[in-house]
Amino acid sequence: MNGAESLVRTLVDSGVEVCFANPGTSEMHFVGALDRIEGMRPVLGLFEGVVTGAADGYARMTGKPAATLLHLGPGLANGLANLHNARKVPVPMVNIIGDHASAHQGFDAPLTSDVAAFARPVSHWVHSSRNARSVAADAARAVQAARNAPGQIASLILPADTAWLAADRPAAPLPVLGPASVSDSAVAQSVAALRAGGPVAFLLRGEALRGRALAAAGRIAAKTGARLICDTFVPRVERGAGRIRVERLPYRPGPAIEFLEGTQTLILVGAQAPIAFFAYPGQPSELTPPGCRPLVLAFPHEDGTGALEALAEAIGASAPGRASPHEPPALPADGPVTAEGIMRIAGHFLPENAIISDETISSGFPFYPLNETAAPHDSLQLSGGAIGDGMPVATGAAIACPDRKVVSLQADGSAMYTLQSLWTQAREKLDVTTVIYANRAYKVLMDEVAGVGLGSVGPRGQSMFDIGNPDLDWVKLAEGMGVEAVRAESHAALADAFKAAMGQRGPRLIEAVL
Amino acid sequence: MNGAESLVRTLVDSGVEVCFANPGTSEMHFVGALDRIEGMRPVLGLFEGVVTGAADGYARMTGKPAATLLHLGPGLANGLANLHNARKVPVPMVNIIGDHASAHQGFDAPLTSDVAAFARPVSHWVHSSRNARSVAADAARAVQAARNAPGQIASLILPADTAWLAADRPAAPLPVLGPASVSDSAVAQSVAALRAGGPVAFLLRGEALRGRALAAAGRIAAKTGARLICDTFVPRVERGAGRIRVERLPYRPGPAIEFLEGTQTLILVGAQAPIAFFAYPGQPSELTPPGCRPLVLAFPHEDGTGALEALAEAIGASAPGRASPHEPPALPADGPVTAEGIMRIAGHFLPENAIISDETISSGFPFYPLNETAAPHDSLQLSGGAIGDGMPVATGAAIACPDRKVVSLQADGSAMYTLQSLWTQAREKLDVTTVIYANRAYKVLMDEVAGVGLGSVGPRGQSMFDIGNPDLDWVKLAEGMGVEAVRAESHAALADAFKAAMGQRGPRLIEAVL
Repeated sequence: MNGAESLVRTLVDSGVEVCFANPGTSEMHFVGALDRIEGMRPVLGLFEGVVTGAADGYARMTGKPAATLLHLGPGLANGLANLHNARKVPVPMVNIIGDHASAHQGFDAPLTSDVAAFARPVSHWVHSSRNARSVAADAARAVQAARNAPGQIASLILPADTAWLAADRPAAPLPVLGPASVSDSAVAQSVAALRAGGPVAFLLRGEALRGRALAAAGRIAAKTGARLICDTFVPRVERGAGRIRVERLPYRPGPAIEFLEGTQTLILVGAQAPIAFFAYPGQPSELTPPGCRPLVLAFPHEDGTGALEALAEAIGASAPGRASPHEPPALPADGPVTAEGIMRIAGHFLPENAIISDETISSGFPFYPLNETAAPHDSLQLSGGAIGDGMPVATGAAIACPDRKVVSLQADGSAMYTLQSLWTQAREKLDVTTVIYANRAYKVLMDEVAGVGLGSVGPRGQSMFDIGNPDLDWVKLAEGMGVEAVRAESHAALADAFKAAMGQRGPRLIEAVL
Repeated sequence: MNGAESLVRTLVDSGVEVCFANPGTSEMHFVGALDRIEGMRPVLGLFEGVVTGAADGYARMTGKPAATLLHLGPGLANGLANLHNARKVPVPMVNIIGDHASAHQGFDAPLTSDVAAFARPVSHWVHSSRNARSVAADAARAVQAARNAPGQIASLILPADTAWLAADRPAAPLPVLGPASVSDSAVAQSVAALRAGGPVAFLLRGEALRGRALAAAGRIAAKTGARLICDTFVPRVERGAGRIRVERLPYRPGPAIEFLEGTQTLILVGAQAPIAFFAYPGQPSELTPPGCRPLVLAFPHEDGTGALEALAEAIGASAPGRASPHEPPALPADGPVTAEGIMRIAGHFLPENAIISDETISSGFPFYPLNETAAPHDSLQLSGGAIGDGMPVATGAAIACPDRKVVSLQADGSAMYTLQSLWTQAREKLDVTTVIYANRAYKVLMDEVAGVGLGSVGPRGQSMFDIGNPDLDWVKLAEGMGVEAVRAESHAALADAFKAAMGQRGPRLIEAVL
């Protein structure tokens, strides 16, 4: 058994079932081990941003770490933006990053770089294996680190010789720290805040936006009138018919503060007190309005579900919350495609239990509420703000949940960052329908000109926001990677194409021209 | 004048004429300043790997730094792999990286990250501006750092408020350290080595592979019989008719050592002693054969040109070296496309003074000598080993040299990393002809299975090297980004398409199916 085999066996024994990969020469022994050892599914991405974003989507849906396999510092570097996003979720993930053989590192070979320095800013845990015989133990520790609540990015750097030299045996899985219990006194503080009678809002994130936690939050809201709120972008939220409605915090600071105005206590469950996405001249970073007290019911690593259930019980909130009815949005009138029309069509035809990967950004904000009454679904959103996670996350979610339809609602500018995702969707025959919002602009930036106080910008500046000239042809881009695609320039055409895609399996792309 | 304006004016005054950009909200004031101030051409890339790779190509051809404009940590992260390559060249480059406003950085907003930590592994110089009034001076220092010989990566981080708050005035350009003179005694050592009579080889890199330096090396070789050698991958070399021939070091350690066998002295001019690209079990990292002494004539930051000329004079090597004749390779016989056929066709039709961006990797090695007698041209190669630099480098070279034809010879697997380059080529109407070597595999990895001692790999492992299933359709991918494209499945078709592209201006792509 060589180090690579001890690694793969340890990962498999620790419950890591999927490896999103883009290997190189220094990772060949890992590929050899993947080949010989049963239990880990390798999924190739043609760019590392796909690899790390897919591992994020997989983890959001399963709660389990996937492995990634990355080639040296530059391969890791290509995956960093989506690791940034994954760190902000946070999800469990185990990155396996090859490095030059130990004896080779002192020479300045072309691909020599400081791999750990690349890994640190996006990792909760970084380790470089010292020799082949320590790889198995290092791998077990990496999985343990990844699985500790609320999920962590663990990056294990493997010099090539630690993969090819002899090792002893796999290491057994290590115990994992689950979510910490919330103390009675923390629950009591929230009870007191609710009983004080002033307006209370809950800011929910992580597990608190799903399942039992969301149900408990719904009972509390029904009993007390407290508002349920989530961040502008959340990693995952259960929405649609039968689910408790959670209001979304507006994107810009002014509207967000106004939205929270009058709240006396903002109870945080797995969330931090709200912060502006960007700073703007003369505007505050903190969005908690004056006079509003943030109160932590559960930190992100704590058991928000248990805390919400304890809180509900403490205040006698036993009657179910008011769930959303099943009233899918009406189809838009025919005519040129609008952002509202896309959301209506998606919501109208959305099948039961679908997963929406939502990277619609500025095009999506106003129409987000439309899907509140669509069929029940999960919505996965851009958690770390690094654009280009929508299609990789959809890819990973589809690997995680092969029986669920994945709908990837995708801004065109962001789509260009990781368009290689479509090839992996084609190769793995994933059931993903991508709808490209083809507005041919970095529209969010056009909207920012006034926001940052620039007044106006002339043609040379505007050319930095305009991604038309030439227009991207998403039908060709998708077909170029083996994904069937169609262009829709009217609501009728879009509705036909989307409905058909919902009735089929496998990857499809629809370019919705705005 | 705000900080952003003081920045742009300082950069322009310091001779920075082009800004490759992918801005975001935190860089809007920089965009505003670019818009209002004449003298800097903004070039948009739809992915930051294009931005940084294009700045590399631009600098290789002009010797001058371009600016890049990158959005926060994740935007920088997407550009890191090609910054790694640029650092290994090395080229001058000034990265302007936006960050959150200073007061916003303490809050963990979604896009908050350690920008400097991302920058350090790829930068020779990193600085974060403290306030708007220091930006101009910081920018002048950044350009100075970038231009110091032999070229450096300077990364200037600008918190958004340093761009929007008031500044005083631009800062004047600072003096730059040109190449250091090589001492007489260092030249004398090389003279002695040449006079000792044992076999001598020169390993040339950087300026030593061009112009006066290469001519001097040619005179020395003609007089003494010394060999002229370059690394397997060099940032830039002048080749073809009328130029002095330089032998290329083989890629793999065994053949490389054999190639250098018998050399008594290896004189290094801007190069380090040769190192294996990767380590392999039981094989050495250092490629200098036993008994061969490396001798530094010029370090990379030193004046290799002056040193070679002094050396030539000292030994009385005044007769010109033997230049390559103009005998373009013969066209291949018609039939299915081969890697040799592509190189023959490119060399046959190559126009005078073209620039070849060569990321052919394994497909290109055996046929590299064919273009020795093609029309005179520059060859730009993958210097840091991080694949995905070929098309961005071609893009930047075309911006740098609008009157020269750029031929981008591109492996398909590597092309997928930065395919967004094609869109910038279309927008800027750049005169780049891309030939995709469509072998539909990470062929270099297939070749490595034996090299690393794996024996064989079964289907699960093989699927990690096979980028067919589904095949990429490069005609559609190119057309999807506005670049005219054609597929060639025979030598006759390829020759027709390539010849036609050489006779036209503007971006073209030819998918050569192997």
